[in-house]
Amino acid sequence: MSEVYAVRRERVRERCAAGGGAVALVSRPANVRYLAGVAPEGAALLVGEDEDVLLCGRPPGEQPGEGRPDEALRMRLLPAPGADPAVAGARLAAAQGAGTLAVEEHHLTVARHRALGSVAPGLRLVDLGGAVEQLRYVKDEEEISCLRIAAEITDQALGELLESILVGRTERHLALELERRLVDHGADGPAFPTSVGTGPNSGKGTHRPSDRRVEEGDFLSVCLGASYRGYRCEIGRTFVIGTSPADWQIELYDLVFAAQRAGREALLPGAACRDVDRAARHVLDLAGHADDLPPLTGHGVGLEIDEDPQLAPSAMGKLDACVPVTVEPGVHLPGRGGVRIDDTLVVRPEADGGPELLTITTKELLAL
Amino acid sequence: MSEVYAVRRERVRERCAAGGGAVALVSRPANVRYLAGVAPEGAALLVGEDEDVLLCGRPPGEQPGEGRPDEALRMRLLPAPGADPAVAGARLAAAQGAGTLAVEEHHLTVARHRALGSVAPGLRLVDLGGAVEQLRYVKDEEEISCLRIAAEITDQALGELLESILVGRTERHLALELERRLVDHGADGPAFPTSVGTGPNSGKGTHRPSDRRVEEGDFLSVCLGASYRGYRCEIGRTFVIGTSPADWQIELYDLVFAAQRAGREALLPGAACRDVDRAARHVLDLAGHADDLPPLTGHGVGLEIDEDPQLAPSAMGKLDACVPVTVEPGVHLPGRGGVRIDDTLVVRPEADGGPELLTITTKELLAL
Repeated sequence: MSEVYAVRRERVRERCAAGGGAVALVSRPANVRYLAGVAPEGAALLVGEDEDVLLCGRPPGEQPGEGRPDEALRMRLLPAPGADPAVAGARLAAAQGAGTLAVEEHHLTVARHRALGSVAPGLRLVDLGGAVEQLRYVKDEEEISCLRIAAEITDQALGELLESILVGRTERHLALELERRLVDHGADGPAFPTSVGTGPNSGKGTHRPSDRRVEEGDFLSVCLGASYRGYRCEIGRTFVIGTSPADWQIELYDLVFAAQRAGREALLPGAACRDVDRAARHVLDLAGHADDLPPLTGHGVGLEIDEDPQLAPSAMGKLDACVPVTVEPGVHLPGRGGVRIDDTLVVRPEADGGPELLTITTKELLAL
Repeated sequence: MSEVYAVRRERVRERCAAGGGAVALVSRPANVRYLAGVAPEGAALLVGEDEDVLLCGRPPGEQPGEGRPDEALRMRLLPAPGADPAVAGARLAAAQGAGTLAVEEHHLTVARHRALGSVAPGLRLVDLGGAVEQLRYVKDEEEISCLRIAAEITDQALGELLESILVGRTERHLALELERRLVDHGADGPAFPTSVGTGPNSGKGTHRPSDRRVEEGDFLSVCLGASYRGYRCEIGRTFVIGTSPADWQIELYDLVFAAQRAGREALLPGAACRDVDRAARHVLDLAGHADDLPPLTGHGVGLEIDEDPQLAPSAMGKLDACVPVTVEPGVHLPGRGGVRIDDTLVVRPEADGGPELLTITTKELLAL
C-alpha cells in the first residue's frame, strides 16, 4: 500500500525534472494527503531530488479518519508551536542544495510565500501549478473502491431516513439525523455540510438547513455524502411529501430526471466536459428554464468533494475512464421550490457498460 | 445597527489614509463579515476613498446564520460564475482612480494576488496586514452580548447532556448529540468541531471523537461551543464516570483547576498575555507536568473561534478591557487520559469586578 504514495511522489518528481529540475513543496491538504497518506493541519511535503520529507506541526495520524502516514516517508515534527512547515520545507530544500523550489501558488498566501523567500534567499521560487491536481484526476481502483464504499454508506443513511416520519420535522433535524447515520454506517464524517430543503427551499444547489418544517405537499430535496478514508461522494434526491404529487410537480420532476439522464448518458472517455453539461442543460433550456439553472451540471470528486473536472459551459477538458464525477442538474423556482437529482458516477468505456453508477438509491419520484 | 458597520469601515479608511492614502480590499471572511454584516463565500469588500462596495459571487444573506448585509453598503453581484470578487474589486479600485490598493497578504494566495496585479497594472499593491484583526480585538457591547448568548446556549446543551446516560455511548455519538442540542437551543451551529474524549483520550487539547465507548472510572473531557450571529464561544469540562474518582484523578483535577483559576485571576486590562499563560503554566510546572502541556493557555474569541490575542509564552501583546478570551490549561498523560478545564471570559477592569465569566457550568469535579 505504501508503494502507491511513493509512486505518486515519483511522478511529481518526474514532472519537476521535465520542467527544469525543481524540488517541489506541496501544501494544499488534499494534495499532501494524496502523496503522503495523511495531512495534519498545516503540513507541507517536500518532494526532493533524492528524498521526500513530510514536515508537520503536530504528529500525523492521531485523529480518526485522518489517514495513515506512508511508512516509507520520512517525517519531521517541528518543535516550535506556530512554526510554519512550509518555511521549514524551504529551509530544508536550500540545505539539500536545491536551486529552484516549485510551490503551490494557488494555495500559499502572499505572506507565507514571502516568508519562504526570506529564509532561503538563494532559492528561486516557481509555481508548481496544478501538477498534483492533474495526477489526482484519474483514480486508481483502490480510490474507486473507497468511493464505492462512501456511496454505499450514503445510500444506507438516506434509505434509513426515508423509512422514518418526515412531516413536522425541521430541515436542521433531518440534516443532523442524516449526518449521524453516515457516521453510524462507517463514514469518517460527512463529505460536506448536508443540505435539506423543503417546500420553497427545495431544488436549490445548496441550502443550509433552516428551522422550516416539512409539510404535506412539499417537495423535499436532500443532498448528502460520506467521507470514507478521505474519499468523498455525493447523492441528491427530491421527494414529494404526502400521497399525491401535484401535476406541476410530476412535470418538473420528469423534466429534471430527463436532463440528469441525458447528462449521465453523455459520460464517456474522451467526451468534452462542456458537452456533458450541454446535454443536461439543453433539456432544461428547451422547457424554458434557462434562468433557473445552477452554473454547472457536475464536478469531479475524490479527496475533495469538488475537484476537476467541472462539467460546465466554459470547461476546457475532456473526460477519461476512471474519472468520478457528479451529475446534478436541477430547477429551482423562487417561492415554489424545485427538483434536484444528483448522482456520483465513474466514467467507464462504453465497452465496459458505460458509466458506473455509485449512488444507487432509486431516482423514481417517491411520495413519502 | 447598520451604523456600526459604516463606523468600522471608516476606521479602516482612516488607517489607510494615515498610511498614505490607499484604498483597501478586505477578503478574509471574518474580516468581511465584521465590516459588512455578512460574508458570502469568496466575497471581497472594497473600502474606497469615497465609497465602499461588497463584491459577491452569489447573493448574500440567503443562508440561515450567515448574517444580514449592512443596508447602507453598496453591493455588486458578479454575473459570471467562478469570477473572483477580489479581482473585480481591484478593477473597480483602478476605475475609481485609486493609485494604491492595500490587500490582505496573509489571506490572498500568490495566484490571486497576481491576478489582481494583471487586471489593474497601474495599481500599486501593498499589504493591509492585520488592520482589521486589530479593530476586532476589543469587542463592543453588542458583540459581547452575542458571545453571552452563545455561552448560554453552550451551557444549556452541556447541562442537558450531563443529565443523560453516558456509560456505553461512543465519543462520536455524544459529540453529535451535543451539536444537535446547540442547534436546538438557537445556535447557528457549532463554533468548531465538538471534542469528546473518554478514558485515555481525555484531557487532550483537541480530540476528534472516535468510536470508543464511555466506561466506568473514565475521565470524560468535552469541549464544545455555539456560534450565535457569527460569534463563537468555547467551554471545556472534564468529568469522572461512576461514583468514586480515584485518588490520582482527584489530585490531577485539583491541580488543573488551580492552574485554570490562576489563569483566570491574571486576566486584567493591561496584563501581558504571556503573563496570563505563565500564571497557569507555573502551577502545572511546579507539579512536574511541564512536558504534558499544550502550547498555549488560551486565545481570543469572536467572529472566529481562534483570534488575537494568544495567551502563550511568546505572546507580545497586552490585554484590554472588553477582550474576550479562553483560559484552557490541561494535562494529558499518554495512555491514562487527563483533565482540561476551559472557560470563555471577558476582560473587565478590577473595579468592575474583574473578568466576566460567560461559561457558567460548574467547574466542580462531577461524578456522573
